[in-house]
Amino acid sequence: MRHLAECGDEAVGIDDEVDITDAGTLREKVADVSPDAICHLAALASVGASWSDPAETYRVNTVGTVNVLSAALGCPRRPRVLMISSSEVYGRVAPGDLPLREDHPFAPVSPYAASKAAAEMAGLQAWLGSGLEVVRARPFNHTGPGQRTDFVVPALARQVAGAQVSGERVLRTGNLDPRRDICDVRDVVRAYRLLLLSGRPGEAYNVCRGESVSIRELAEGLIRLAGGELVIEVDPDRVRPVDLPDMRGDPSKLYEATSWRPEVTLETTLRDVLAHWESLSV
Amino acid sequence: MRHLAECGDEAVGIDDEVDITDAGTLREKVADVSPDAICHLAALASVGASWSDPAETYRVNTVGTVNVLSAALGCPRRPRVLMISSSEVYGRVAPGDLPLREDHPFAPVSPYAASKAAAEMAGLQAWLGSGLEVVRARPFNHTGPGQRTDFVVPALARQVAGAQVSGERVLRTGNLDPRRDICDVRDVVRAYRLLLLSGRPGEAYNVCRGESVSIRELAEGLIRLAGGELVIEVDPDRVRPVDLPDMRGDPSKLYEATSWRPEVTLETTLRDVLAHWESLSV
Repeated sequence: MRHLAECGDEAVGIDDEVDITDAGTLREKVADVSPDAICHLAALASVGASWSDPAETYRVNTVGTVNVLSAALGCPRRPRVLMISSSEVYGRVAPGDLPLREDHPFAPVSPYAASKAAAEMAGLQAWLGSGLEVVRARPFNHTGPGQRTDFVVPALARQVAGAQVSGERVLRTGNLDPRRDICDVRDVVRAYRLLLLSGRPGEAYNVCRGESVSIRELAEGLIRLAGGELVIEVDPDRVRPVDLPDMRGDPSKLYEATSWRPEVTLETTLRDVLAHWESLSV
Repeated sequence: MRHLAECGDEAVGIDDEVDITDAGTLREKVADVSPDAICHLAALASVGASWSDPAETYRVNTVGTVNVLSAALGCPRRPRVLMISSSEVYGRVAPGDLPLREDHPFAPVSPYAASKAAAEMAGLQAWLGSGLEVVRARPFNHTGPGQRTDFVVPALARQVAGAQVSGERVLRTGNLDPRRDICDVRDVVRAYRLLLLSGRPGEAYNVCRGESVSIRELAEGLIRLAGGELVIEVDPDRVRPVDLPDMRGDPSKLYEATSWRPEVTLETTLRDVLAHWESLSV
């Protein structure tokens, strides 16, 4: 919303008013607003939680997306729709598949991933069958100030910031070796807006940096930025069993469709997330 | 059910007792039966009807499948699951893509097709993420005695049989040129049982003949079998706007995984469907 305002767009957020699983109310609200474009982000976004209630995950993420598409189709002047999928749809990939391109087949491992892959089918159908201009974004990992601490960068940053106050000398982490393709959320939202403007209907676009970084490098970067001397210690309770060793996307298609390039360096992202937690730890 | 009984299998049909959108009851029923295998066929199967209520189509076909998979996962002794998808998932294909192989990307045109593609994502995930042995079947067109007349072969056969009684001289049809890959339903159910026995978990299999036949050939075949001299007349009201000119699958993967080969000739299928309608027209 902040980025859209900065661009001079007139943005209306309806997430506080409407539940996307309530098709009727959603349809009315969208018709009322009569938008030029819809950026559909509403979802149950926790991979972990999706395991405990798969049906609810599909009800919100898949059928909810169908409702958004129907609401768009119901507008006299049909809006473009950007739907936010996830790099999770690629799922179980082999090292030789990296960097992942958009035509890589789906191999969803979690119910969350499958619910997003399923939602993509609905988006593709709305274009092929009804001509609704639907563009799909597949963001890879991203972070920034404000992200919840069930994601790795803020979880580490909170600990590092806290240690500066408490005098704690140890940073406890999960698996250190997995590598992830991490963008700054401020770059990601720029990509979304550009895809709404010039993404090709029916197409899907990776939103990623194209390079991966290990969790160890993230932890060391945060420690260095804090000027501290924390020792990294792997906590068995935080080690997850099924981690892909590496995950990396190919952003070429996004580069070709838009002027987007990542602008925020990983160093800046880490600095800003750390500053956020330092401001809360004082 | 008839084929399973002939094979000496102990088959339990629960479609009259349980609604797959009722996850709790379904889970209890499946646990009660404790099957070795589940053949999941329940779906809203009309492509046409799916356009008027897409959300309901996904609720039954996609979330319903998620419920079936959860019920299977809830069994102490986990059954194998065969889920029946559809060749419709391939959707908009180019002539050069024929015959379609299973790794062809999905391009669903109708909400029905997308709801099946979405259900496939759930089935694949249940295997990749939870190790449930899910096999996906993608039947192409199939027919046989007993099929409803909103499908082309029984619709034509009913007219041909009726004409023998009424003296009508004209057979009214829709588009005559589209070609379809048509199996007999008795061959299709044999394929399903064999896939349940020896299909590879996580994999999808076309169920098809590998050859297509035009609607004109079907109509002419039925007229010939009836010994009549009906004139074929294209009825503009029956001509559909978006027909793929040809649809044809590659059954090689099914051939390799099982001993299945189509056994019922198209001539036999047409004869049996015609006999069914002749017996009702007398």
